[in-house]
Amino acid sequence: MEKNISLDKEALDYHKKLNGKIGVFSKSPLKSMDDLKLCYTPGVGAVSSYLSLHKNQVKEYTIKKNAVAVVSDGSAVLGLGNIGVEGALPVMEGKAMIFKEFANIDAFPIVLDTQDVDEIIKTVKHIAPVFGAINLEDISAPRCFEIEKRLQNMLDIFVMHDDQHATAIVVLAGLINAFSVVKKDLKNSSIVVIGAGSAGTAVAKLLYAYGVRDIIVVDVKGILSKCRGGILPHQEELANITNEGCKEGSLADGLIGVDAVVGLSAPNVIKPEFIKTMNEKPIVFALANPVPEIMPDIAKKAGAFVVATGRPDFENQVNNALVFPGIFRGALDYNIRKITDKMQINVAKKIAELIKSPTSEKIIPSIFDPNVVKAIALSLKNAD
Amino acid sequence: MEKNISLDKEALDYHKKLNGKIGVFSKSPLKSMDDLKLCYTPGVGAVSSYLSLHKNQVKEYTIKKNAVAVVSDGSAVLGLGNIGVEGALPVMEGKAMIFKEFANIDAFPIVLDTQDVDEIIKTVKHIAPVFGAINLEDISAPRCFEIEKRLQNMLDIFVMHDDQHATAIVVLAGLINAFSVVKKDLKNSSIVVIGAGSAGTAVAKLLYAYGVRDIIVVDVKGILSKCRGGILPHQEELANITNEGCKEGSLADGLIGVDAVVGLSAPNVIKPEFIKTMNEKPIVFALANPVPEIMPDIAKKAGAFVVATGRPDFENQVNNALVFPGIFRGALDYNIRKITDKMQINVAKKIAELIKSPTSEKIIPSIFDPNVVKAIALSLKNAD
Repeated sequence: MEKNISLDKEALDYHKKLNGKIGVFSKSPLKSMDDLKLCYTPGVGAVSSYLSLHKNQVKEYTIKKNAVAVVSDGSAVLGLGNIGVEGALPVMEGKAMIFKEFANIDAFPIVLDTQDVDEIIKTVKHIAPVFGAINLEDISAPRCFEIEKRLQNMLDIFVMHDDQHATAIVVLAGLINAFSVVKKDLKNSSIVVIGAGSAGTAVAKLLYAYGVRDIIVVDVKGILSKCRGGILPHQEELANITNEGCKEGSLADGLIGVDAVVGLSAPNVIKPEFIKTMNEKPIVFALANPVPEIMPDIAKKAGAFVVATGRPDFENQVNNALVFPGIFRGALDYNIRKITDKMQINVAKKIAELIKSPTSEKIIPSIFDPNVVKAIALSLKNAD
Repeated sequence: MEKNISLDKEALDYHKKLNGKIGVFSKSPLKSMDDLKLCYTPGVGAVSSYLSLHKNQVKEYTIKKNAVAVVSDGSAVLGLGNIGVEGALPVMEGKAMIFKEFANIDAFPIVLDTQDVDEIIKTVKHIAPVFGAINLEDISAPRCFEIEKRLQNMLDIFVMHDDQHATAIVVLAGLINAFSVVKKDLKNSSIVVIGAGSAGTAVAKLLYAYGVRDIIVVDVKGILSKCRGGILPHQEELANITNEGCKEGSLADGLIGVDAVVGLSAPNVIKPEFIKTMNEKPIVFALANPVPEIMPDIAKKAGAFVVATGRPDFENQVNNALVFPGIFRGALDYNIRKITDKMQINVAKKIAELIKSPTSEKIIPSIFDPNVVKAIALSLKNAD
């Protein structure tokens, strides 16, 4: 814990010193009356008049072409839960930094003082005119599903809930290479997904869309099953595509004999002894943030063959931050409205291909790999 | 007109080339895993947890300390009217540029797809957590009055409708020096204000608060008077503090014998012959943007002694852009919630004092005067 306390202090100091991790800059100097005449009145009047008559050209003359709102209600911040907007803001600023540094996107954090679904939807709709895309972020399930769907139907710009789809893509990319490392066939494998929230649901659905048929989802109540009572309405689809044999029990039961586990849940829920019951060469993705389901060294010691976390300070960082900059770059550049399963699978394959010879220590490109964003964006351009 | 067509083309080209006049930047490099650990997960988790427990410290760790939303519904853009959000966006971006370049404020344009008062208020309230202040902009009267007032009562951050108060302050500052140039006593003068919208209303009210008692407001229906029928509810306060003698008639009638006219209305409504009927050494502020109530050369030719417009390409630019950067700088730095009449008068006097020896060509500091923002912000700090 020594290390974490030290990092915590360093992170608090870093944030206090910066006092805002992003800022706004002027793209043209404002040093003379001539500058002012062009950017502001009277010159801007001609642009305003023009755009009021040519509304469909607004992206060509304004920030809308490259602006993304990073919207959160603070209801599911990292793995910390419903900690509110104050706690959400530094995360959204971090996302905006990543958008800028990796994909040259002008993203602005929008944290909301409401957690009401209708109010969130109306608010995003009302502020949408300034943005070219909306990144929904850290909004709890099942509200996130409805919010994303209704906004996608309502708006003429790209809307994506990052925690679902960017996570599902990066997990699939990681699994493709992890299964290649252990020389097993991903489609014919058995996989446990821990967590039936936004990320867990999206991962299970994308694995199914990819062709995996033996998927078990475990939530706080145990193994999810259409035979189990108390399935929530939004979990029905998940129950229908997973656990065909109506297995019951706890996480420990679920993990017996499976090839891989993908944790998208809470700190320390995977015990070393669970890993020992998995199939040979077990694959363990412990992606809860900031504290994973099991620490990598413990997982390895228990026999895990490939281990990934969501963190940058361990090998194999399987984090949606690898994916969302490229997705939004592509969506903005190629006017994509909605990401389909097919697009997500194409993107995952493309990311996996960037690692020519996967090993247990290297299944996924680094977020600092300069090819990632471009490869993702281009694979969206070429998608059906 | 040759000149304007050329400027229009230049402004359109400038905007198309920039494709967004502002952008977002990262305040710290993101070049290594160590950087990522601090700004994003896992380090940011400590900041999120801390702020969820210490909500009142959010300004010290995030962008909220220095972020301003420039909010418009596109209902009263410049002097162009209700041209919608696409036309409003370049103006709000221009404001954001000015905020940055003159007051180092991180302002972001928020243009809304609704013109419903309740929806505007709810939307601004919902997005307020990320901002340290709200700048309402180019929202038509009388809606702007209610929106500003209700948001001020609702939020714990500074809320100001720029078109009202920043305009009133800069007009008062300009008039203080203009009256000094013509050697008349402003408080004992007669002034006509053209326009009973947001700016006209605020100017008339501030002049009254300053001590001017002979004010006449002229709107599209002619001279406003409590004796005239058809006064709208929001105009009642205005009618009660102006035109004590119940004068009636047109703008031409209103201007006969008065010392100054302040136009906040529409292009070309002041005719040269009107100026000839004013009192000696007439003061003409023709502030409609981008096309003033009368062009300065025509006003001068008709006998105007001091002429001001809202534009940077003529002498005496009386534009709220001189005022709002300093006001918001002061509000953010000194935690001011609401601007009072007394503060506005103090700021106007301070701006006027920056011109040591006013002349008819120089009644107001340039927006490029580096002392302006600091002087305004400090005068707010020292206000009661």
